[in-house]
Amino acid sequence: MDVDLPADLPGREELLARELAYSQDLQRSGAWRHLWRIAGQYSNLSVFDVADNDALHDLLWNLPLFPFMRIDVTPLAHHPSSID
Amino acid sequence: MDVDLPADLPGREELLARELAYSQDLQRSGAWRHLWRIAGQYSNLSVFDVADNDALHDLLWNLPLFPFMRIDVTPLAHHPSSID
Amino acid sequence: MDVDLPADLPGREELLARELAYSQDLQRSGAWRHLWRIAGQYSNLSVFDVADNDALHDLLWNLPLFPFMRIDVTPLAHHPSSID
Amino acid sequence: MDVDLPADLPGREELLARELAYSQDLQRSGAWRHLWRIAGQYSNLSVFDVADNDALHDLLWNLPLFPFMRIDVTPLAHHPSSID
Amino acid sequence: MDVDLPADLPGREELLARELAYSQDLQRSGAWRHLWRIAGQYSNLSVFDVADNDALHDLLWNLPLFPFMRIDVTPLAHHPSSID
Amino acid sequence: MDVDLPADLPGREELLARELAYSQDLQRSGAWRHLWRIAGQYSNLSVFDVADNDALHDLLWNLPLFPFMRIDVTPLAHHPSSID
Amino acid sequence: MDVDLPADLPGREELLARELAYSQDLQRSGAWRHLWRIAGQYSNLSVFDVADNDALHDLLWNLPLFPFMRIDVTPLAHHPSSID
Amino acid sequence: MDVDLPADLPGREELLARELAYSQDLQRSGAWRHLWRIAGQYSNLSVFDVADNDALHDLLWNLPLFPFMRIDVTPLAHHPSSID
Amino acid sequence: MDVDLPADLPGREELLARELAYSQDLQRSGAWRHLWRIAGQYSNLSVFDVADNDALHDLLWNLPLFPFMRIDVTPLAHHPSSID
Amino acid sequence: MDVDLPADLPGREELLARELAYSQDLQRSGAWRHLWRIAGQYSNLSVFDVADNDALHDLLWNLPLFPFMRIDVTPLAHHPSSID
Repeated sequence: MDVDLPADLPGREELLARELAYSQDLQRSGAWRHLWRIAGQYSNLSVFDVADNDALHDLLWNLPLFPFMRIDVTPLAHHPSSID
Repeated sequence: MDVDLPADLPGREELLARELAYSQDLQRSGAWRHLWRIAGQYSNLSVFDVADNDALHDLLWNLPLFPFMRIDVTPLAHHPSSID
Repeated sequence: MDVDLPADLPGREELLARELAYSQDLQRSGAWRHLWRIAGQYSNLSVFDVADNDALHDLLWNLPLFPFMRIDVTPLAHHPSSID
Repeated sequence: MDVDLPADLPGREELLARELAYSQDLQRSGAWRHLWRIAGQYSNLSVFDVADNDALHDLLWNLPLFPFMRIDVTPLAHHPSSID
Repeated sequence: MDVDLPADLPGREELLARELAYSQDLQRSGAWRHLWRIAGQYSNLSVFDVADNDALHDLLWNLPLFPFMRIDVTPLAHHPSSID
Repeated sequence: MDVDLPADLPGREELLARELAYSQDLQRSGAWRHLWRIAGQYSNLSVFDVADNDALHDLLWNLPLFPFMRIDVTPLAHHPSSID
Repeated sequence: MDVDLPADLPGREELLARELAYSQDLQRSGAWRHLWRIAGQYSNLSVFDVADNDALHDLLWNLPLFPFMRIDVTPLAHHPSSID
Repeated sequence: MDVDLPADLPGREELLARELAYSQDLQRSGAWRHLWRIAGQYSNLSVFDVADNDALHDLLWNLPLFPFMRIDVTPLAHHPSSID
Repeated sequence: MDVDLPADLPGREELLARELAYSQDLQRSGAWRHLWRIAGQYSNLSVFDVADNDALHDLLWNLPLFPFMRIDVTPLAHHPSSID
Repeated sequence: MDVDLPADLPGREELLARELAYSQDLQRSGAWRHLWRIAGQYSNLSVFDVADNDALHDLLWNLPLFPFMRIDVTPLAHHPSSID
């Protein structure tokens, strides 16, 4: 997920606060399993654990920053060498 | 990491067994934190937890399948919204 | 899915017959919902209806032609304007 | 089809309502055979069943959202392994 | 259409003769409307006039050089400014 | 040639009328040999028959829509298999 | 790092002065090991010597010009042939 | 070098006159050895003969149109087959 | 023009000698106006002065190394700022 | 510089020994200023300090591994913010 948020967007701080709350609620619920910053970019690498593609799209579409993001989804599966 | 392993490679099975052992040892030690299959591809998405880039390169260079792989490394950092 | 199958591959005809049977079994079961040829290419566009990414990967990994394919997966969800 | 619709476009809601009606009329007529959301994006994957390229272009050019879309067309043909 | 034909392919001359005959038959029938060489490359730009995508794919799939080609199809429609 | 013309450009209709007249004059003179719409896009595929690159550039540079276009030129030559 | 700084940005000169001071402080501290201009572009190639990815991201995120930059990070390691 | 100059830029004509004078001075001095238009684009292909990369960057950075250009530099060397 | 010539090609030296003679004949005739090496690559940047695209294609197609090359042609025109 | 060296190349060890000696001689002479491994790849990032493009090309062309490398050269200049 890459973010491109105008510096002078009206309501910018309130938007970021809502994004933070939304993200942390989902992390606590377990749907947003991992969240890393990509070093040097206003971007993140995230791993989600959801029931299906519909649930994933709803989750992402409702991100407060969604209109300012470019998102690529890579479908992940269990790896046969994984010890998990 | 994308893998392109010739079907008729001499010692193919033994090589895959060494790769499996190497990968699972590192997963148990905590250095190879996550390992997912990318659905539909002979590729994986992995997250490593190592001291520095030298340690990361050594770990990857010594993968038994390294000569048959194409690897792109994305440097990850802590995300300020992460609850971890 | 792009296919690159050597013309002189030993067992080529038998492989193609197994691919055909595998594909049609999955179409009949409903897991392989749609299968179109991309005009002018040895490629197809397919839509699958499976339980999750693990099921999708298993289905694709077991394609008899998998070692000769390059596959990109696009995760599809219900569209709010769809009448289905 | 990727959509990039300004949040503050005058008449935005009316435009989206016209897009919805246009799309569902074509779905009911059978010309717009399939419509899926691409998970995580303001994009869709659609399959059309039309007489020829002229009909396809007219259909797409008249989308109310056409000026805000980027569209790539992949020509599909019958696949010899398809059971349809 | 880009061609990559091994110099030492057995039956190379006979293959090229069949390609020439196939192409010229289709040009005479009107299905292969235009055929230009892309300067500096073993490639051509062609325009076809066929009933539908199935006919187009059959035509291309049966090119004697098809297994040695990479083909991209751009769907063309009537242009409103064209005087034809 | 891809066109990206602002919907609210002052003098938009007059500009489009000039583009149409310019294009059709050149089609009638034979310099603009072919003009097709690329299905689903505000783009065209054109073939020009001009004396040299200077004449081609002058023709394109003077398109009324030139400032709103992105143009890629592919140099075409006679194809040895062409019956023309 | 590519820079795209609007010519008419309010406070442009003050911003550039802060960028210069920030960069030179880090060069003197040794964290910003090398800084070269890429000829013909408003871009630079830099090498950093920092403890980890978190330190690297903090350093880059706090660049006064960060909101106007596009940055790609390539993780570097010791090369076995290096005499350093 | 690609140019993207706003049609309504204040001082546009004066800027273009300065660019012309700057370019022709350098052509006369021998530093700007060749200058061609890329047919169909507001772009040029240029060859420079300068002492080193610092001189090249200074020359390009001081182009009056530099802020409106995207420039890629390809380092050229003597070719062993050249008769020059 | 990028060259990829197998090290163990039978007749390699004789082929390179023919390429050299062919290139220098054309340089002397004025058709091959400029020939530079791209630093660090087995590639060149060349400028040709020929009557039309047919002549250009013939010239390139007959390069002794043509089957081992990848060539991209950029059509060049007179630049209005050029003093030539 | 990316390296793709066949595992079964005759004389592979001797070639690698010559590459090492060549590289370290140039590092000691100061022409090969920096040499880093790109983590996870059989690639390096190098900085050279040479008189001109001819010297750079000679240096690279004579790398014992040159026939097995893909090299991109980025021309670097002094950066005005650099303290060196």
